[in-house]
Amino acid sequence: MIIILKNSATKDEIAKLEDGLKAAGLNTNLIVGAQQSIIGLIGDTSRIDLDGLYAQECVESVTRIQEPFKKSNRKMHPANTLITVGNCVIGDGSLNVIAGPCSVESEEQLFETARAVKSAGATMLRGGAFKPRTSPYAFQGLEKEGLRLLSAAKKETGLPIVTEIMAAADLDLFEDVDIIQVGARNMQNFDLLKVLGTINKPILLKRGLSATIEELLMSAEYIMSGGNNEVIFCERGIRTFETMTRNTMDVSAIPLLKQKSHLPVCVDPSHAAGIISLIEPLSLAAVVTGADALEIEVHCNPKKALSDGGQQLRPDNFEKVMEKIKTMCGFLNKDFGRQI
Amino acid sequence: MIIILKNSATKDEIAKLEDGLKAAGLNTNLIVGAQQSIIGLIGDTSRIDLDGLYAQECVESVTRIQEPFKKSNRKMHPANTLITVGNCVIGDGSLNVIAGPCSVESEEQLFETARAVKSAGATMLRGGAFKPRTSPYAFQGLEKEGLRLLSAAKKETGLPIVTEIMAAADLDLFEDVDIIQVGARNMQNFDLLKVLGTINKPILLKRGLSATIEELLMSAEYIMSGGNNEVIFCERGIRTFETMTRNTMDVSAIPLLKQKSHLPVCVDPSHAAGIISLIEPLSLAAVVTGADALEIEVHCNPKKALSDGGQQLRPDNFEKVMEKIKTMCGFLNKDFGRQI
Amino acid sequence: MIIILKNSATKDEIAKLEDGLKAAGLNTNLIVGAQQSIIGLIGDTSRIDLDGLYAQECVESVTRIQEPFKKSNRKMHPANTLITVGNCVIGDGSLNVIAGPCSVESEEQLFETARAVKSAGATMLRGGAFKPRTSPYAFQGLEKEGLRLLSAAKKETGLPIVTEIMAAADLDLFEDVDIIQVGARNMQNFDLLKVLGTINKPILLKRGLSATIEELLMSAEYIMSGGNNEVIFCERGIRTFETMTRNTMDVSAIPLLKQKSHLPVCVDPSHAAGIISLIEPLSLAAVVTGADALEIEVHCNPKKALSDGGQQLRPDNFEKVMEKIKTMCGFLNKDFGRQI
Amino acid sequence: MIIILKNSATKDEIAKLEDGLKAAGLNTNLIVGAQQSIIGLIGDTSRIDLDGLYAQECVESVTRIQEPFKKSNRKMHPANTLITVGNCVIGDGSLNVIAGPCSVESEEQLFETARAVKSAGATMLRGGAFKPRTSPYAFQGLEKEGLRLLSAAKKETGLPIVTEIMAAADLDLFEDVDIIQVGARNMQNFDLLKVLGTINKPILLKRGLSATIEELLMSAEYIMSGGNNEVIFCERGIRTFETMTRNTMDVSAIPLLKQKSHLPVCVDPSHAAGIISLIEPLSLAAVVTGADALEIEVHCNPKKALSDGGQQLRPDNFEKVMEKIKTMCGFLNKDFGRQI
Repeated sequence: MIIILKNSATKDEIAKLEDGLKAAGLNTNLIVGAQQSIIGLIGDTSRIDLDGLYAQECVESVTRIQEPFKKSNRKMHPANTLITVGNCVIGDGSLNVIAGPCSVESEEQLFETARAVKSAGATMLRGGAFKPRTSPYAFQGLEKEGLRLLSAAKKETGLPIVTEIMAAADLDLFEDVDIIQVGARNMQNFDLLKVLGTINKPILLKRGLSATIEELLMSAEYIMSGGNNEVIFCERGIRTFETMTRNTMDVSAIPLLKQKSHLPVCVDPSHAAGIISLIEPLSLAAVVTGADALEIEVHCNPKKALSDGGQQLRPDNFEKVMEKIKTMCGFLNKDFGRQI
Repeated sequence: MIIILKNSATKDEIAKLEDGLKAAGLNTNLIVGAQQSIIGLIGDTSRIDLDGLYAQECVESVTRIQEPFKKSNRKMHPANTLITVGNCVIGDGSLNVIAGPCSVESEEQLFETARAVKSAGATMLRGGAFKPRTSPYAFQGLEKEGLRLLSAAKKETGLPIVTEIMAAADLDLFEDVDIIQVGARNMQNFDLLKVLGTINKPILLKRGLSATIEELLMSAEYIMSGGNNEVIFCERGIRTFETMTRNTMDVSAIPLLKQKSHLPVCVDPSHAAGIISLIEPLSLAAVVTGADALEIEVHCNPKKALSDGGQQLRPDNFEKVMEKIKTMCGFLNKDFGRQI
Repeated sequence: MIIILKNSATKDEIAKLEDGLKAAGLNTNLIVGAQQSIIGLIGDTSRIDLDGLYAQECVESVTRIQEPFKKSNRKMHPANTLITVGNCVIGDGSLNVIAGPCSVESEEQLFETARAVKSAGATMLRGGAFKPRTSPYAFQGLEKEGLRLLSAAKKETGLPIVTEIMAAADLDLFEDVDIIQVGARNMQNFDLLKVLGTINKPILLKRGLSATIEELLMSAEYIMSGGNNEVIFCERGIRTFETMTRNTMDVSAIPLLKQKSHLPVCVDPSHAAGIISLIEPLSLAAVVTGADALEIEVHCNPKKALSDGGQQLRPDNFEKVMEKIKTMCGFLNKDFGRQI
Repeated sequence: MIIILKNSATKDEIAKLEDGLKAAGLNTNLIVGAQQSIIGLIGDTSRIDLDGLYAQECVESVTRIQEPFKKSNRKMHPANTLITVGNCVIGDGSLNVIAGPCSVESEEQLFETARAVKSAGATMLRGGAFKPRTSPYAFQGLEKEGLRLLSAAKKETGLPIVTEIMAAADLDLFEDVDIIQVGARNMQNFDLLKVLGTINKPILLKRGLSATIEELLMSAEYIMSGGNNEVIFCERGIRTFETMTRNTMDVSAIPLLKQKSHLPVCVDPSHAAGIISLIEPLSLAAVVTGADALEIEVHCNPKKALSDGGQQLRPDNFEKVMEKIKTMCGFLNKDFGRQI
């Protein structure tokens, strides 16, 4: 950690600051510059509060050198984390595709879509039972009944299921769920993350609309520091000034997350753009930049969808996109939906 | 609502779409343009799902004309909502100042700060017991004990207390709290908002880091649709590309929220910039643009603060800022901290 | 175009507005809604000034239906525009790679780099003679001498040359340049665009740091409306809140530009992230989403580069990236650097 | 300047790097940390190229400590720069108001508006002769004739005139102009800035849509390094995700620019929000946070305006806004439009 001192810092102030830091068990190195002086700190600075340092009168700014994420950091854990879900493995270099409707709407809708995505090659089934909607007047999901239908669809198709949790209080209902999703709006709902850190199930952690990559890593850290090491990142587009797409997919986040962390990376091309015709190109971009999984919204009849109708693929279109994805995986020697 | 049709839309497709809309109880008006046609809809379109419309093949785009927020809309409720807290009223044109430490750290720290802010004219006391921190390794607040200390400080000073809730499960602990704060990261934690809609206490709703003004209004709508009409908005800066300030205070949001809604508006100049020297100018900017309240972080000894040390005012500086604010209120004929 | 009227609009005001619009040669369609009324306009509305309409008291808002770009619009010109440069064609489905140093620094540096990129398969040579630098104290380029060296390198290697213009006054110096680049900071330097519209040379138009895709299309429109139809878009990353990368590459812009326009699309992975290890994945993402060209910074000795040292590839690394790109082109049946 | 070294940096690499830096005349201080080492540099590092350092294999990152702007830096020049224009002084603590139409449209329109703004107390007249418009099909300004009309209006009213330059080639036409404005889209048109650095006239430098405050300071540096020290900053809103306003006025930029620099700060509330009803509150916010000038668009008949009709005030409304501004200046003991 480096502390940059103000021009106006007196010798006395600097000495006091150094004393305090030494008392906290750190070695200090004062460099007196022509115009400005700095203190370099050696030792474990992870528990030092930046804000406290900023409040010292002689301090101009503080720069952390070490990355603040640890358990999710590849430097600490060089090998990829592998997450086994049913017969699938996420993170071993293979590609998994999680597909299904935005919302679970009815048994008929869910089962028809589930069979269709399975037949097209999807390895897991998604479907929203609890839906985060901007308006309280919009469809909020079938909730408990939605989870029951997902379980039934899992039994019928054999596909592991992925669905979103919105409140820690609902956790008991998620026993049969294979991967619990945390939505973008809850990425920094730290109380929820802490609870999810105590369970024994993989968490699909979606990047917040305006969350930095470092903040995404820190949210994984919340879950992992509770003991649950099975976190999958999900890039789903960030909020920018561009309005032609619903969000801006940050394609650079995919290779960067793979470099910085040992955890798997999923990409959601449906929300990233909100435009059906972009799902195929964005899926391919995700695969070639190193994604371990894709999450794609498919609806057996998008025209009648109760949410996100405009960005859900029809099964026939999904099949075409899947053909392209599988061929690309073949070219890249990337196992597609490898079963163990 | 206006539906813009694709160039390629056939008469047949358009007729089918119109039939569906009429079946939903709406009047349709087809306008055939030289290059593009549109359908204008008359009737209550608030329950129509935009996404479903987007999934129709003949639809290019859909534009809502009516604002989606209702209970918070000034058009529906022209008079200002007044919120009584202890002897203070928020929303009647007067100014309230909520002040106190970022985090409650100890009895001594809280009491000393509480007495200081009261003597400088603050009308309410703030202090964080549950702290949303980016890192799981940072100080997370005194939690239950923090709330107990706030209650004690309230008894001692007579100041109503304002503190943040992070999980619905903690609600019982907030009985003695006068205003419950929802933090920026939880502005779209819809399950928490729904629970807060069922209680009988004012909610200070902070704007999310990347939330639009319309989304902030919709989050108030969640609380109000549950029956709790006492919502106070809080502008605290949004996330932009600028890095010299911690956030970018959206000063335009203050008069816009007052125009669009009848609910009171609070401004948090401490988080908006994260720079002590900007607290005074941003507070004055908030007052002259119509804010009903300010929330300012003050710490009796910022150098030892366990969080946000760099943006908390010392009591003596807070007093100077308060002098400026009071004088400005006098000039504007705005009651300062009027007691009923 | 649709005009949404205020609730308070009187019959009289509406009638006057309709008269004015009819006088301008447009057909108007008034739809009287339960809560709000609208006017649909039929006819050529491209010359109507939105701002003027907003100033009418009875108008709440105005929505354009037709896209404001014409000459660059694929609807008006469905076939791809092919741009021939030397023996290369850009826009015919093949891939071209433009490579070379950020800045031309010396004959030795340029020639060594030029030979290296040619041998690795680059089809064109880039190099900055006039450099837009944030600081006036930074190296500003060799200017005229840089252009002379580029010409010499072109003669020696046979590679067409691409370089940036910063001022219309320098245009005479660009006679031997094959593609003139307009930098991101000049994307809305409309006077420069107008001048470039009058010449007979392809223009590589870089997207501005905060330019929307529609604004990029409109800037092409400036050049094309002057008579020069040879415009190549260049996505090079936009400015967002993320700080881990220099910019955020908007990968969705690639397929969207191809859908909306008939003009070719180039991608600059060097500036998009500013991180060497991301050049390969971002290049592949660009190719699979439909890019017609890549522009990559290569320097024979990046450690001694006078600008952008940290994002320029060494020739040996460039060769490896090119191998990957060529193999991917082979898989996609995309001609690599096809010569006519 | 601080250089953070990679974990993998060898002693040899570090020694070589230190040698290179010493050869460049700098003193180096190596701090060997538990996990990471750094080099602190002492001496004039302003000419060191960050990019070159990034290209060294052993370097992880580089942090500048000194601010890169010099001539505009208050540290180098503590006293406010005063700019005299006609009988007005900008920067001495008084307030000037520059008002007039977005575009000069006709003699009648300009003269009527000029007389109206003068009578309401404006101290300078603005009007666009060269107009930067997103679309080439929109009204581009009266150009040379517009400048002639501005001169005539100056003679008639005695008000100094402010108007935008779009190309260095037009400079000769601006002889009678009192303040030359550089538009937001040209803030980093470095060639234009360099030319304006050689003349002897104040420059009103508008902040770019996505320019940081530091970049704005660096653009002033371009002008000042050419010898022209009379630069006035203009905050006019930045581009963010919010769509309810045209731009987001960065009110914090006003006090920050005053702290960091000795140059005067102007605020343009018309473009900052693009909403007429916000001009008054944003003007007051600008005044209380320390602005030296306001630039407000006024049109004698906004309904017929050829550009920006929706954000230009009518003279009667401008008069009301001016009353508020003058009263506020009175309260703040800020001279309003002081004449020397």
